[in-house]
Amino acid sequence: MAENNEVIQKVVQELLKRGINIDPKEAMSSLGGKKMETKDLLNSTSVVPEFVGTREIGDTIGMVIPSVDPLLLDQLHVSKKYPVLGILSARSGAGPHIMAIDEAVKQTNTEVIDVELPRDTKGGAGHGSLIIVGGNDPSDARQAINVALDNLSRTFGDVYNSAAGHLEFQFTARASGACNFAFGAPEGKAYGLICGAPAGIGVVMADTAVKTASVNVLSFASPGHGTSFSNEGMVHISGESGAVRQAVMAGREVGLKLLAELGDKPVNDFPSYIK
Amino acid sequence: MAENNEVIQKVVQELLKRGINIDPKEAMSSLGGKKMETKDLLNSTSVVPEFVGTREIGDTIGMVIPSVDPLLLDQLHVSKKYPVLGILSARSGAGPHIMAIDEAVKQTNTEVIDVELPRDTKGGAGHGSLIIVGGNDPSDARQAINVALDNLSRTFGDVYNSAAGHLEFQFTARASGACNFAFGAPEGKAYGLICGAPAGIGVVMADTAVKTASVNVLSFASPGHGTSFSNEGMVHISGESGAVRQAVMAGREVGLKLLAELGDKPVNDFPSYIK
Amino acid sequence: MAENNEVIQKVVQELLKRGINIDPKEAMSSLGGKKMETKDLLNSTSVVPEFVGTREIGDTIGMVIPSVDPLLLDQLHVSKKYPVLGILSARSGAGPHIMAIDEAVKQTNTEVIDVELPRDTKGGAGHGSLIIVGGNDPSDARQAINVALDNLSRTFGDVYNSAAGHLEFQFTARASGACNFAFGAPEGKAYGLICGAPAGIGVVMADTAVKTASVNVLSFASPGHGTSFSNEGMVHISGESGAVRQAVMAGREVGLKLLAELGDKPVNDFPSYIK
Repeated sequence: MAENNEVIQKVVQELLKRGINIDPKEAMSSLGGKKMETKDLLNSTSVVPEFVGTREIGDTIGMVIPSVDPLLLDQLHVSKKYPVLGILSARSGAGPHIMAIDEAVKQTNTEVIDVELPRDTKGGAGHGSLIIVGGNDPSDARQAINVALDNLSRTFGDVYNSAAGHLEFQFTARASGACNFAFGAPEGKAYGLICGAPAGIGVVMADTAVKTASVNVLSFASPGHGTSFSNEGMVHISGESGAVRQAVMAGREVGLKLLAELGDKPVNDFPSYIK
Repeated sequence: MAENNEVIQKVVQELLKRGINIDPKEAMSSLGGKKMETKDLLNSTSVVPEFVGTREIGDTIGMVIPSVDPLLLDQLHVSKKYPVLGILSARSGAGPHIMAIDEAVKQTNTEVIDVELPRDTKGGAGHGSLIIVGGNDPSDARQAINVALDNLSRTFGDVYNSAAGHLEFQFTARASGACNFAFGAPEGKAYGLICGAPAGIGVVMADTAVKTASVNVLSFASPGHGTSFSNEGMVHISGESGAVRQAVMAGREVGLKLLAELGDKPVNDFPSYIK
Repeated sequence: MAENNEVIQKVVQELLKRGINIDPKEAMSSLGGKKMETKDLLNSTSVVPEFVGTREIGDTIGMVIPSVDPLLLDQLHVSKKYPVLGILSARSGAGPHIMAIDEAVKQTNTEVIDVELPRDTKGGAGHGSLIIVGGNDPSDARQAINVALDNLSRTFGDVYNSAAGHLEFQFTARASGACNFAFGAPEGKAYGLICGAPAGIGVVMADTAVKTASVNVLSFASPGHGTSFSNEGMVHISGESGAVRQAVMAGREVGLKLLAELGDKPVNDFPSYIK
């Protein structure tokens, strides 16, 4: 065994010398987060009062500014000025974070005032996100960010990754402020998102989806239109709840087959929630 | 040997525990596709009728929609409406796919109606692509996508990758609809593309190329102009066939030397076709 | 030992077979350059006269075109036409390269005529850069590029990377042409940059910074405004030298704590220069 350990050490050293990257965080999150853990990465007693929490999925961090500096507020790209800001920011994930905030603003006295989509996902085909909610009470903003963080294990449920790309599906029976702000979804009505990467898969999924049930096509986003140059094709649909859900599920069925043609089977990191 | 196998297993487990990414697809395609295989990834009898084929290079998928939903067609970003759509979509590669479609529309009764360039290449410096051709007959569109897929092993011939960046060169004696749509190349005339990443290499290559032979400089694309924020400098040239070819080859000679200064020798995955 | 070597070889082969990427260059630079070496990558006697030098950090290359082709110059996206071009181009790093060129134009008879920021960093959250300076004498341009290359080990001093993101801080007591061109910094006055990724960290750092000392907020850049869709939040500040420095250092303190909440401790590759 002593000899074995020596061999193992030598192999590891040899590999490290040859430049292998064994950062576990990097490897895990390279496709947008592969882990099922939803607990905070660190339970440290942070000395930064703005800190709310993190989730490993998407490298997501939530923060609250209890009283934003007016000089800075003037320069922020927000739709409306509030003294209190809640911030949800991630390297990977736009739809999941927007849907999570949609739930958060339903449950709290806050409003979505900024949604920006960086072209990120750590080498993947999609977006990260910067979402700001405004409020008048720090505890409201903190609660909103906590609700959003807790919803990510649900809203990532229908995100499917493979080495070649990804698929994302979202559904809500009643869209709220975040879906409206980000996607133009009519508030109070059912909303669905069908997204595929590489983008062409999204075109075919969209065609299948809108043929399946009678829904309104709000818009189609693609690399040059309505995305931040991501390699995604995505249709935003609205309408009657059952029809929207049926359309999303039909898109999912064809998308999973098409993306699998590019190699391995796409997998989700959390249980599917659209059924 | 039993002991050796045990050691090997232990080392592999140790490495996996430490987060090493051993997804072969991911590793192979990290620089835009390193494999020479041009056959379909899967010969499965797909149950998705829209599926045409894939190529491992660039994580490329080809599809056909025989009769696109009118509600969706209204939202697609196409220059002209056709009932039949052929789709070529890839994570890595824009020039190679545009040139492949250029050949496809020459040979079939189809027209290029959309070219969109995501900022992709899976962590590389360049673009992926979403290209849509329109037609009136599903068999025309299917043939166009098949011709394009088959041309990728040629059009990737002068794409050279290194860990630090990439170079791309394209040439056609007679530009057709795709080169015109995407790059403004005059149809029926010779067209050349000289592209380098990081972008500065493209500037120097362009200078060398246009000094070498008498050609028309159609445009120069760079991170902030004419690209989707890719890290590429690329010149589009047109003119007499021999001059364009000579200019492209002169650019290639200086580019290969410059990119090599950033580390290892750039290599192509398929045989060079410009000579 | 013979047996051990055999085992090592087998393990390495097994891993390679399973697709592990052991390109040392790729691994080292995956987070924007991890090495302390500032010497040229190659001391080859390059046969390309335009070549000036490289730095491993950021995969940076410097070049000079002694007499640019007029047809190409017409197509380049420069603010002013000069016969001589100096070019600094990198896969990773925008702030560090702009600050390095800021020093270069102070010391040489050259002018900044183009700054373009690709969405790059090889899968990271930020930008690469393409910077062009103009001059009338090739030796001036060459000197400018050499000064910039030599300054990178300083200007990368307050760039901190982790697997989840990065932080960047810059400070100059007297901004010059590059800071003015790229960030709108008033020339001759102190300028500071505070940048965090994922972007939300930059919002909180900016708030802390501008509350700490009396400074002017020039602008706030975020994924959708003033960046190339990078996942960064960054504030540009100007004012009295001591105040700007103090603000930058206060932002750094909170940023390092916030980014650490997403996993490992962020580290810089060169000694910090802002103190």
